Amino acid sequence: MARITIADIADRAGVSTGAVSYALNDRPGVSARTRERILAIAAEMGWRPSQAARSLSGARAETIGLILARAPETLGFESFYMQFVAGIEQVLSERSYGLLLQVVPDVDAEIAAHRRWRAARRVDGVVVVDPRQDDPRLPLLTDADALPAVVVGDPSLAGGATAVWTDDAAALRECVGYLAGLGHRRIGRVTGTEAFGHTHIRDLAFDDETRRRGVEPRVERADFTPEAGAAATRALLTADRPVSAVVFDNDVMALAGLGVAHELGVRVPQDLSLVAWDDSPLCEAAFPQLTALSHDVTSYGAHVARRLFERIEGAPHGSFLDATPVLRVRGSTGPAAAES
Amino acid sequence: MARITIADIADRAGVSTGAVSYALNDRPGVSARTRERILAIAAEMGWRPSQAARSLSGARAETIGLILARAPETLGFESFYMQFVAGIEQVLSERSYGLLLQVVPDVDAEIAAHRRWRAARRVDGVVVVDPRQDDPRLPLLTDADALPAVVVGDPSLAGGATAVWTDDAAALRECVGYLAGLGHRRIGRVTGTEAFGHTHIRDLAFDDETRRRGVEPRVERADFTPEAGAAATRALLTADRPVSAVVFDNDVMALAGLGVAHELGVRVPQDLSLVAWDDSPLCEAAFPQLTALSHDVTSYGAHVARRLFERIEGAPHGSFLDATPVLRVRGSTGPAAAES
Repeated sequence: MARITIADIADRAGVSTGAVSYALNDRPGVSARTRERILAIAAEMGWRPSQAARSLSGARAETIGLILARAPETLGFESFYMQFVAGIEQVLSERSYGLLLQVVPDVDAEIAAHRRWRAARRVDGVVVVDPRQDDPRLPLLTDADALPAVVVGDPSLAGGATAVWTDDAAALRECVGYLAGLGHRRIGRVTGTEAFGHTHIRDLAFDDETRRRGVEPRVERADFTPEAGAAATRALLTADRPVSAVVFDNDVMALAGLGVAHELGVRVPQDLSLVAWDDSPLCEAAFPQLTALSHDVTSYGAHVARRLFERIEGAPHGSFLDATPVLRVRGSTGPAAAES
Repeated sequence: MARITIADIADRAGVSTGAVSYALNDRPGVSARTRERILAIAAEMGWRPSQAARSLSGARAETIGLILARAPETLGFESFYMQFVAGIEQVLSERSYGLLLQVVPDVDAEIAAHRRWRAARRVDGVVVVDPRQDDPRLPLLTDADALPAVVVGDPSLAGGATAVWTDDAAALRECVGYLAGLGHRRIGRVTGTEAFGHTHIRDLAFDDETRRRGVEPRVERADFTPEAGAAATRALLTADRPVSAVVFDNDVMALAGLGVAHELGVRVPQDLSLVAWDDSPLCEAAFPQLTALSHDVTSYGAHVARRLFERIEGAPHGSFLDATPVLRVRGSTGPAAAES
């Protein structure tokens, strides 16, 4: 007898895999009539209850997977991922689940690792981060053998898979509005990795909101590392017409930028205002403390894990907006100096 | 999708599970004819080789495990663990191994998770961190069913299991000598979690080295969090006879201590010298930059992973000294002010 999958039964019955899962698990979520029809079709196809029991509960790996496609040594710099993982672990620890974490050099290696995991049933579901435009991982998340997955990023990048996202455009617009209101007329932005979809979304919002407010935008590309953040800040501050405010795509680059300002003798906030993205102990530890677009990343990770468990239990795909980052004003931002 | 078990295949083929295991693993123990029949039945039932790899005792999970017994939300604060994990991942990624990370509330839960992992052969080996005096996890690491393991900590705490360690006592003695040489006569120490064995080892070295140099020691207990670090620093600075130098057990507490100094109007380094343990981007981002006992934690994690692979491949137990933290002097330390 060939192996019968939930997707096979769903196809034959003309219902979602979630509905099949509810019916076979004897859980609420489908009508009594649909349940009976699904059970009849499953029986006709040779689905055995014992097989169902093993695949739906007994045989779970009790593990969810997270693959990070980046150089391992960059992980230590970013508090984002440790806080995010901490949030995932909060939800996993309630269920005695483990997190299988693998670091790979690029997206191709991520796809290969993902395929190995699903062939070997190593994980019950996956968290997919750093979605890109036309992301090559998307087919893996929506094909017939797809593992339950949550994409951490804008629904426009998730290709119909479940997404948990933050409204970065709204947050950046608020930040530009705040700086423009303080009189800043030239505002710099130091970006994260250009290939990431959320970098592009922030680019568009920054371009549009500066234009709308009659502010001159200056964008420098970086990649989340302190070195690149320092170089980008130096470029913005030593240009012919230097900026008087800079918004960074993470906290580490903002701190590196603060170091460059100290070094160049540019006073913060009197001569230069700095804003970090994602608040962290680093922002509070800096002198002056850094104004930041503050988002509870631990809570974000927990939210993602909860949505993934819902998918594992058969919930349909969906998009879920997490809290929008809010501007936490501290000592690194202030009124623009009068132009000399 | 259902998982096919060895028992299912044995049932269908009318042979023992052992015979199935031999056949699927391509090992001697069954005739060529039986092997072929078993492989044909397994293929027909949808058995995949990768699935075999995980469930058969001879094969590897291609995963190593790390259990952290602490509140998940504290992980986001400490750059230590993310850097350490980054180092482990450097070595794992060369072999396409994953890291199974689980966060549990306490050591009892850690032991239970460890037992589950080894019963289910979920990991090929484990990294054991934060060893304690008379650590209840030690029997698991040396009994007959022990998984290959590396204890990250002093060999005196590892109960004969393989240990990778740093000579914290030597590092702390160097630091006390440096501060005494600058004229500091009362030196504070803000500790990490008291239950951890390395805290005790540092306590002994601090006590002995201050005594040897005729310096007055002051110890305040904390737990690696910024809140506890700030409270401990406040206690040291507002005492009747305040200290003129403080050594912290991590970087986050040192930064919090610097914040308390700013707040109390205590000038660093003119009135107060501060030293962090484990250098990090936080130490460089602070103003003034923090003098630190610098240890390449990413390289430490990679060292641990390499020793674990050696154990997995059959190397005997051993103790391996990692690089001793060296004092990196920056702006947060200087000569003691003359006593008024």
